[in-house]
Amino acid sequence: MHERRQLGNGVRHGRRVTCVERSRFSTDVRVRFAETDAQGVAHNANYLVWFEVARVAYLEEFAGGYSAIRDQGLESFVLETHVRYLQPARFDDRLRVHARIGKVRGARFRFDYEITRDGEVVADGWTSHACVDARTFRPTRIPQALADAIATAEASSS
Amino acid sequence: MHERRQLGNGVRHGRRVTCVERSRFSTDVRVRFAETDAQGVAHNANYLVWFEVARVAYLEEFAGGYSAIRDQGLESFVLETHVRYLQPARFDDRLRVHARIGKVRGARFRFDYEITRDGEVVADGWTSHACVDARTFRPTRIPQALADAIATAEASSS
Amino acid sequence: MHERRQLGNGVRHGRRVTCVERSRFSTDVRVRFAETDAQGVAHNANYLVWFEVARVAYLEEFAGGYSAIRDQGLESFVLETHVRYLQPARFDDRLRVHARIGKVRGARFRFDYEITRDGEVVADGWTSHACVDARTFRPTRIPQALADAIATAEASSS
Amino acid sequence: MHERRQLGNGVRHGRRVTCVERSRFSTDVRVRFAETDAQGVAHNANYLVWFEVARVAYLEEFAGGYSAIRDQGLESFVLETHVRYLQPARFDDRLRVHARIGKVRGARFRFDYEITRDGEVVADGWTSHACVDARTFRPTRIPQALADAIATAEASSS
Repeated sequence: MHERRQLGNGVRHGRRVTCVERSRFSTDVRVRFAETDAQGVAHNANYLVWFEVARVAYLEEFAGGYSAIRDQGLESFVLETHVRYLQPARFDDRLRVHARIGKVRGARFRFDYEITRDGEVVADGWTSHACVDARTFRPTRIPQALADAIATAEASSS
Repeated sequence: MHERRQLGNGVRHGRRVTCVERSRFSTDVRVRFAETDAQGVAHNANYLVWFEVARVAYLEEFAGGYSAIRDQGLESFVLETHVRYLQPARFDDRLRVHARIGKVRGARFRFDYEITRDGEVVADGWTSHACVDARTFRPTRIPQALADAIATAEASSS
Repeated sequence: MHERRQLGNGVRHGRRVTCVERSRFSTDVRVRFAETDAQGVAHNANYLVWFEVARVAYLEEFAGGYSAIRDQGLESFVLETHVRYLQPARFDDRLRVHARIGKVRGARFRFDYEITRDGEVVADGWTSHACVDARTFRPTRIPQALADAIATAEASSS
Repeated sequence: MHERRQLGNGVRHGRRVTCVERSRFSTDVRVRFAETDAQGVAHNANYLVWFEVARVAYLEEFAGGYSAIRDQGLESFVLETHVRYLQPARFDDRLRVHARIGKVRGARFRFDYEITRDGEVVADGWTSHACVDARTFRPTRIPQALADAIATAEASSS
């Protein structure tokens, strides 16, 4: 059976949600006042910033950090982002951003996210990325050490 | 045949792109220095802000503006956002954000976007929204006058 | 003798710095990638966001939080902001934002800040605020309980 | 006699305002929804972004643009920022950002700003900057050609 969620008091979502939350990795953010908008909720663009905060923390935890990627002469570019807003987040809310790497293939990888508040999912989404040579910007296979670190991380958290 | 695009000097996309650009409506933004990041490009979250700028301008052009919606006791919430980044945008780039309403059904509507620079698509995406009663936050059918205005706008621009 | 500080490798500041740091209260932030700009440093506008994060945390610690202020039918408006940038902050830097209330007079109050990294000051500044009635927006004397809480906080931290 | 301004319905300012507005240069911005906060007004940090938008436009108008500065192997750093908020700005407000260079001395220069809405000042402020060598980050005298262009610009607008 698929899940049912509410936005505000009524708008329902009926899609299947991948279980990012089961992943062990998460990082906490608190909704800043500057992140709210005149509707009194966190503005939709900030979720991409929070996804990034979690991504950076994930890479630090499992792969020596973003600087380790750069030290190998690599950069990563964001190719695609997707967010589903299930419940509004408000000023000062404590949010937990769960992240996991969903797929690694050649130069591409994808992160999946779930944002929860007191255990309830308020948003989810994913971002896809390309690993490129920092000098030529040509797509470059993700280094084996990084792929291994990720595989280990994901194996241990499932 | 599907289109082929490049990200940086090498990452290719092979997906079909809906022709938002053919739509007559667009609004211009210029990449602010504050919108760049340490990779030297516009940060990914800003595209959602630019989509919103175009959405607001679209509603002003065709539907009496966002305030007309509020005057009817309605609010709209963002349900979902999606962005594909095809070419990096840089400081001071002049971008054209094309917008059209792709679908209206009951309380839901969706906007499609294409961002171009000198005629070349640098990003595209879509956002979906729910129209709600501003007091109860219950989903509410989009008012007929607004739906009519949108239908006219889209008919004239195809 | 006045202090000497460096910006980058050379620009010197010779002004006196008030000792916000001696205050006991501080909160930590980490420079987000979204907060950097194309010069590779944290963009100047974000310091005002970090000041606000510290202000919110200060009020939570000493005065029942911002919501306590609102619960008394009050709002506060920012009247003036000032920032001095002494050292660039970079992606992923761990910054400590020290805050103290410098002056309370009638409806007005002022916060002083110092941002440090590994004990070195990278920026300082202040913000001034007016307490207003949330309904009429008329300036309203800061409630005695709040003034008392602040006095106690500042007495204990000097 | 000094000027009197109101914030909200009641907070008054009695300080002298330098007449930036008399300067001929200005650029227009419109308050984006993403720039509002839960108080229903434009968040205080955005004013620094708007100052920057005006600064970039000023340099483009009078000094060959920011890229001309970079082409001479120079960068500029923000040393200090100051904003006074006189009237709240709201979603979709059309604001005019007036800018002029107030002082050039050696490696330092300062911009003064006034933000108006329908001719009324809603905020003012200034930012100070240092010109540095892009490689060594050492403070570097502003190039004579730029100083001359600025002098001409300011002479013609007074």
